[in-house]
Amino acid sequence: MTPDRLSLNQKTTDSWSLHQAVDGCARAGLRSIGLWREPVREAGLATAARLVADAGLRVSSLCRGGFLTTDDPVAARGAIEDNVRAIEEAAELGAACLVLVVGGLPDGSRDLPGARDRVARALDALVPRAAEHRVRLALEPMNPIYCADRGVLSTLSQALDLAERYPADRVGVVVDTFHVWWDPEVLPQIARAGTRIFGFQVCDWITPLPADTLLARGMMGDGHIDFRALRAAVDAAGYDGDIEVEIFNADIWAADPDAVVETMKRRYVEHVVGR
Amino acid sequence: MTPDRLSLNQKTTDSWSLHQAVDGCARAGLRSIGLWREPVREAGLATAARLVADAGLRVSSLCRGGFLTTDDPVAARGAIEDNVRAIEEAAELGAACLVLVVGGLPDGSRDLPGARDRVARALDALVPRAAEHRVRLALEPMNPIYCADRGVLSTLSQALDLAERYPADRVGVVVDTFHVWWDPEVLPQIARAGTRIFGFQVCDWITPLPADTLLARGMMGDGHIDFRALRAAVDAAGYDGDIEVEIFNADIWAADPDAVVETMKRRYVEHVVGR
Repeated sequence: MTPDRLSLNQKTTDSWSLHQAVDGCARAGLRSIGLWREPVREAGLATAARLVADAGLRVSSLCRGGFLTTDDPVAARGAIEDNVRAIEEAAELGAACLVLVVGGLPDGSRDLPGARDRVARALDALVPRAAEHRVRLALEPMNPIYCADRGVLSTLSQALDLAERYPADRVGVVVDTFHVWWDPEVLPQIARAGTRIFGFQVCDWITPLPADTLLARGMMGDGHIDFRALRAAVDAAGYDGDIEVEIFNADIWAADPDAVVETMKRRYVEHVVGR
Repeated sequence: MTPDRLSLNQKTTDSWSLHQAVDGCARAGLRSIGLWREPVREAGLATAARLVADAGLRVSSLCRGGFLTTDDPVAARGAIEDNVRAIEEAAELGAACLVLVVGGLPDGSRDLPGARDRVARALDALVPRAAEHRVRLALEPMNPIYCADRGVLSTLSQALDLAERYPADRVGVVVDTFHVWWDPEVLPQIARAGTRIFGFQVCDWITPLPADTLLARGMMGDGHIDFRALRAAVDAAGYDGDIEVEIFNADIWAADPDAVVETMKRRYVEHVVGR
């Protein structure tokens, strides 16, 4: 039995091209995939869209837009343009949402409130373009470990404060267990999010944390996260979309991708669904 | 000019014994020191108290009690006993507060709410003992990077919710910039804390994060934290106690401790005070 809502985020099988990942999903009986822009670009956008459609796969997300915190006006315009392209790609791929990793502090800056303000202003520019293309923008609050260098949105509460300035069918959040599991407010904030939950991603928090913190994520069951409690909260909030497994981990990337997918399916049943 | 409120937390000069640290403070003209239980024990408690008093140093904190999250009843009783000893030590040393690092998840547990509940129950047992000895307990909210293995108190808001169950002169918080700088709610929560701020510790968040995340802290100015904004907020909340520099960092520990203290003094003036 293949769990119906389980989606393979391409990053979990990082060595696979898009072709290989689509074939791998078919072999494993998966019905959904989370795409990344780089392998989509390598395959060609039109080819990628056709490949995925022909395989009958849903696209649970496109990763990723964002990186909107620069304080250089020229770079800021470039970031908006790149995000508009990402919106167009998400539309052509039929992705359930475009994930936005908002970016960290500019080099040498210590102005965290300023960086957060620039994200809000960039969204003002992007939301009308997302509406034109009927694409949903999913803000990703990130574990504070990444606040300086990757994502200045640090909690679900903060992401929802921002999302709620815009229509509920246009700007929402992606709930990633790795990023939010520690938050004392996670359950009430998931309930608050309701229909603004555009995506749900799972992977584990493992200790000791690997030396490269960007590759610190673990397979479900290898760490400390109570996935069922979070999955139940997301379900109760009304989310009935796909559940993506997205793992950045050097050991998992070095393993045979088909074996990783089989482990992922088993662990998903053991640790995420049920109860 | 030696900044009056600057305190050397012993951990910043980890290779120094208590004798050496007290002498180092004298050479540098510092008037306050943050003590750790292990070097105090090595010196002997009475000797330590006399050394510090003879040097005319204030004791800005004793680090640390806590580790109250075990789900084993025998270990839990042992933890309470050890914390009572820490309270007695803090009293004899005349420390401004006893810092409590509450502990992470027990081995193999994924029950984060359960661990948090056990901290609250342990405090019920410890607060009367702290009152007997007129010791102030300072809960330390920790960066979520340490939630699994060190401290399940993750935000100032959560620590204050817990502290506010007890008298304001008995249970408060220590604000450590490394732990709280990322929090979108940090400024209002510092204002809320008011007189419950029992300690203020500074060190920087540096990137890339060193491989051992327990030693990931940087000298002020080497990273991303806006110290003046946080110091101003703590001042505005009414805190007029010492400002401790506490840095866990292998490179700093390998350097000449007197040079580290000089750098610390300079960086403190450049990055923490003023404006």
